[in-house]
Amino acid sequence: MQEASGSTSFPIGKLAILLAVLQEHEWKKVVEQELKSQDFRYTIGRVGAMDMIKVIAAIETAAKNNNIIDSNKYREVHSLYHAIIEAIQSIGRGVVQFGDILRTVGLTFAIVRGKMTGAVEHEGEWIAVCAYGTIGAPKKGFEHEAIGFGFNHI
Amino acid sequence: MQEASGSTSFPIGKLAILLAVLQEHEWKKVVEQELKSQDFRYTIGRVGAMDMIKVIAAIETAAKNNNIIDSNKYREVHSLYHAIIEAIQSIGRGVVQFGDILRTVGLTFAIVRGKMTGAVEHEGEWIAVCAYGTIGAPKKGFEHEAIGFGFNHI
Amino acid sequence: MQEASGSTSFPIGKLAILLAVLQEHEWKKVVEQELKSQDFRYTIGRVGAMDMIKVIAAIETAAKNNNIIDSNKYREVHSLYHAIIEAIQSIGRGVVQFGDILRTVGLTFAIVRGKMTGAVEHEGEWIAVCAYGTIGAPKKGFEHEAIGFGFNHI
Amino acid sequence: MQEASGSTSFPIGKLAILLAVLQEHEWKKVVEQELKSQDFRYTIGRVGAMDMIKVIAAIETAAKNNNIIDSNKYREVHSLYHAIIEAIQSIGRGVVQFGDILRTVGLTFAIVRGKMTGAVEHEGEWIAVCAYGTIGAPKKGFEHEAIGFGFNHI
Amino acid sequence: MQEASGSTSFPIGKLAILLAVLQEHEWKKVVEQELKSQDFRYTIGRVGAMDMIKVIAAIETAAKNNNIIDSNKYREVHSLYHAIIEAIQSIGRGVVQFGDILRTVGLTFAIVRGKMTGAVEHEGEWIAVCAYGTIGAPKKGFEHEAIGFGFNHI
Amino acid sequence: MQEASGSTSFPIGKLAILLAVLQEHEWKKVVEQELKSQDFRYTIGRVGAMDMIKVIAAIETAAKNNNIIDSNKYREVHSLYHAIIEAIQSIGRGVVQFGDILRTVGLTFAIVRGKMTGAVEHEGEWIAVCAYGTIGAPKKGFEHEAIGFGFNHI
Repeated sequence: MQEASGSTSFPIGKLAILLAVLQEHEWKKVVEQELKSQDFRYTIGRVGAMDMIKVIAAIETAAKNNNIIDSNKYREVHSLYHAIIEAIQSIGRGVVQFGDILRTVGLTFAIVRGKMTGAVEHEGEWIAVCAYGTIGAPKKGFEHEAIGFGFNHI
Repeated sequence: MQEASGSTSFPIGKLAILLAVLQEHEWKKVVEQELKSQDFRYTIGRVGAMDMIKVIAAIETAAKNNNIIDSNKYREVHSLYHAIIEAIQSIGRGVVQFGDILRTVGLTFAIVRGKMTGAVEHEGEWIAVCAYGTIGAPKKGFEHEAIGFGFNHI
Repeated sequence: MQEASGSTSFPIGKLAILLAVLQEHEWKKVVEQELKSQDFRYTIGRVGAMDMIKVIAAIETAAKNNNIIDSNKYREVHSLYHAIIEAIQSIGRGVVQFGDILRTVGLTFAIVRGKMTGAVEHEGEWIAVCAYGTIGAPKKGFEHEAIGFGFNHI
Repeated sequence: MQEASGSTSFPIGKLAILLAVLQEHEWKKVVEQELKSQDFRYTIGRVGAMDMIKVIAAIETAAKNNNIIDSNKYREVHSLYHAIIEAIQSIGRGVVQFGDILRTVGLTFAIVRGKMTGAVEHEGEWIAVCAYGTIGAPKKGFEHEAIGFGFNHI
Repeated sequence: MQEASGSTSFPIGKLAILLAVLQEHEWKKVVEQELKSQDFRYTIGRVGAMDMIKVIAAIETAAKNNNIIDSNKYREVHSLYHAIIEAIQSIGRGVVQFGDILRTVGLTFAIVRGKMTGAVEHEGEWIAVCAYGTIGAPKKGFEHEAIGFGFNHI
Repeated sequence: MQEASGSTSFPIGKLAILLAVLQEHEWKKVVEQELKSQDFRYTIGRVGAMDMIKVIAAIETAAKNNNIIDSNKYREVHSLYHAIIEAIQSIGRGVVQFGDILRTVGLTFAIVRGKMTGAVEHEGEWIAVCAYGTIGAPKKGFEHEAIGFGFNHI
């Protein structure tokens, strides 16, 4: 799964985005192969809610239960938490609220952890959180797509 | 390019995301074919800047020059503008500033316009703006990925 | 109800503001005459609440029940929703919350829909939402005036 | 200029709003009479700018030059400043920026200072700042109305 | 408790900060002596909560019960309220929410009221609110320190 | 420098706050002794500016030049950057801008890096940034105190 230019493999953030966006698509397999070949830890999940707290908790729980982070280490929990909040801010586009402003979300999220590729040899790992789905009124068809992305060192 | 379930084609927002994210990848062709088959108007562009105003202007200009919107109609300019601001807020994750807080962005953006598929027959068109790239210090390798997405009726 | 200069009639936003602000005043009749003469659709309502969601729902319901928007068209619901959120942000002045930060609002709101006058012939319609009233502690006399205004193409 | 109910005179905030909104209208005279009869200090001004700092400075300077506040007293400058920032946030609706996000404003503003009427006898004075006009692209006709309002004890 | 330079006594804000931060320390006595010698009114309190409204109410109640402000004067309540909201925004660092984003706070707060020292002879009084403690997950040890500070004329 | 209860030494955040706030005071020596005894890396600096970018750059440069962080490691630069932005948001109290809204700051800042004490044995290090000083109009005496604090794992 090289870039068209053939020069680099997909970076961690792009893989998190594709993992969340392509869940229903056959390309998903290629994305997962790439994740495995680069030794990334990853997981996916779904959450639908009007309460922002449920969305945050669902992503946090998925990361802990699937060993993306070590739930006994505050450093890792802290890193993940800020990545999730960034993703939530990114979905909210200016207002960090869902139910309080009468909107609901239905999201597929992906969490990816591993090394960053780039010009500098970055020691240590990073975590990317991407959530893709719909945001809108609590009525079928009265919603549109949204994507949120957060990133942090871990 | 059907979903794995075979039931629906890719929606407008997902196509805008994939168009921005997969610019360097062979899958780009499939994304473009899908865009054409659904009669979407679309364009792509690149912008690197510390000034937020340059990013906004670059996306706006690309949309006008490639006839995604009619630059003589304030309604269309207004719709696009708010979609761009949403994408910028989404990239900024809580702070709607780039250079003022000493960060620079290098973005590939995609603009897609067309009908929304879904449970309700939505009359009229919508516009999706997605910008994907890097955000960080003005120093090679000291940046990480980010994605922003905005959506509006047009 | 021409401007003093005699050259133009009142624009849509000004009428929405005056409709909300002058509910208790005899000038209200003149404002309503002007709204009718320009073929604007409009409605007014009142809401008092600590929960922001109630304020949003009250405005949305009034617009639907009085046929300012077509509740079956997501485009129109989407347009109104963003105009309401803008008005709420405008009232909140930096914090998009009421009850969560221990303040309550008592608002008269006006919703106006129609064409925009101006230098360019704008095809299509726009929607203006204005809410005027008090914001403050949940105790009589411990509140002060506030006004919020949102605007969108529809 | 009593309310239709005949029971109360117009409060300070409503007068500031009407003063800013009705500058071009014959009703302006009635508003000014009411301001004088209630012993309010007030002034009006205009400012057009892409730089937010120019808008803030224009309102601040008008208040000082017309003796709405005493420019030698930090308390009064502090009170006015926060009322102006509230009005700016109110105009910005979620993004406290004008030129940086490629939009310009053309505003008529009113500043009113005096006692607040209400259920409680409020000792001391309050200040209201209202700015009404247009916000939009730096192109004639590609803008729409906006109103901002700030309020503080002085 | 003069500054090292010997030239000035501690200003009101610094005393509020030290009062909140040094509650458990022997230096607290020196801070309180300084507060008394400058005729400042002050109080301290503690609050632990996920609900922001409880934090705001706890600080407001402490100020009223200890006569830092006169609860019958809206001017004073208004001044204190805005100082508290500033402190809350300061603790929140970009998101004005606690429980809604799954975080809890445990805070010691100090409220100080009195004259400001400085180059200009400032007539009247000011109020400073400082809250210091921890913010984090609702789990022992998974939290870190935070401080918030608000200031207003009264 | 034990707490009055005698049970624990001062935590990292409290030391950063005291270091910034007590620069002019004799207690500074005790704070520095405590920092050294706990093997914290720390530095202090001053910056006065209307441009937020200058404040951020001053803190970042001080951290790099005094080896609080390794400027060749993006992880450390990223961690510091977010701690600085948190401190800036904390000072700004709702508006992340200085000069653009006509206010200037004069700040003493402290940066502290080291282990966190607490109920859980936290592996690795954390970084605290505290900036204390004045914010206000660019005119002597027309400013008041402010404090900002940011915290991150490194």
